[in-house]
Amino acid sequence: MLDDRLPGLAARIQARCIASGLHLVTVESCTGGLVGHTLTTRPGSSGYYLGGMITYADTLKQDLAGVPAEVIAAHGAVSAQVAIAMAYGARLRMGADIAVSVTGIAGPDGGSEAKPVGLTYVAVADVHGTDVRRHTWTGDRATNQTDSAVAALELVLERVGE
Amino acid sequence: MLDDRLPGLAARIQARCIASGLHLVTVESCTGGLVGHTLTTRPGSSGYYLGGMITYADTLKQDLAGVPAEVIAAHGAVSAQVAIAMAYGARLRMGADIAVSVTGIAGPDGGSEAKPVGLTYVAVADVHGTDVRRHTWTGDRATNQTDSAVAALELVLERVGE
Repeated sequence: MLDDRLPGLAARIQARCIASGLHLVTVESCTGGLVGHTLTTRPGSSGYYLGGMITYADTLKQDLAGVPAEVIAAHGAVSAQVAIAMAYGARLRMGADIAVSVTGIAGPDGGSEAKPVGLTYVAVADVHGTDVRRHTWTGDRATNQTDSAVAALELVLERVGE
Repeated sequence: MLDDRLPGLAARIQARCIASGLHLVTVESCTGGLVGHTLTTRPGSSGYYLGGMITYADTLKQDLAGVPAEVIAAHGAVSAQVAIAMAYGARLRMGADIAVSVTGIAGPDGGSEAKPVGLTYVAVADVHGTDVRRHTWTGDRATNQTDSAVAALELVLERVGE
């Protein structure tokens, strides 16, 4: 039932994380749990995936992931700064080696000229620091959510150095 | 891409929660985020869905959702007691009106004679108290995860009194 790209990414991340002894967590806004669910479709995922946060409301970005209210106020919930703060906070609060975050505007509503529907940031945090990528998808809500999950998983894979 | 039963359940929950002014959160183990993602596939879901926790590892059941370690030790992570404690704790910690939890053994591994693959508990917590249901699925991992998500959403719908 998952998009064709997702199971393969989950398999590669699982192999790499288990081989390296890395524990991963997720913190998702616009994907609402799709990244976490993708990882757990694979048997044995409990060997490296600890779990995650679905910080759909801004209050949960703050209360669960520890994103400072000032960062959301200054840059908006869909921003590189918030994506980084989500990954940074989630990693610390869940005691993981690596955390991946997603925040975006899946649509069809919620866009603006400065921040159009499809704008999405994915970020990772690990012991070496953080990294973030900006994407602007042009699909419908479901496709934008899927593309965001793919981008998040690709960034993890890049970070864990397959 | 979702199982056919899921979008309709999400639509009914959204209509009911928005009409009643109820805010919902999720706390998932074996479904890994599928319940949350299902809710967010629908535009307007931010009007009632705050987010959730993916407490895949037992440490996160404790640290995020506040499930007492003693409850896990006494009854196991897949138990009515833990399902109830997950929903109870998640509701309080995320400041929601209603929380729904899922914990189960999706398989193909992890089963025992006492707790076979497919055993799943779903629970809800709201201001009136808690409720829990036991299911034993007989499908493969993907089907068991989907059936668990359906059961969780059906329990929410029952609770919010459609």
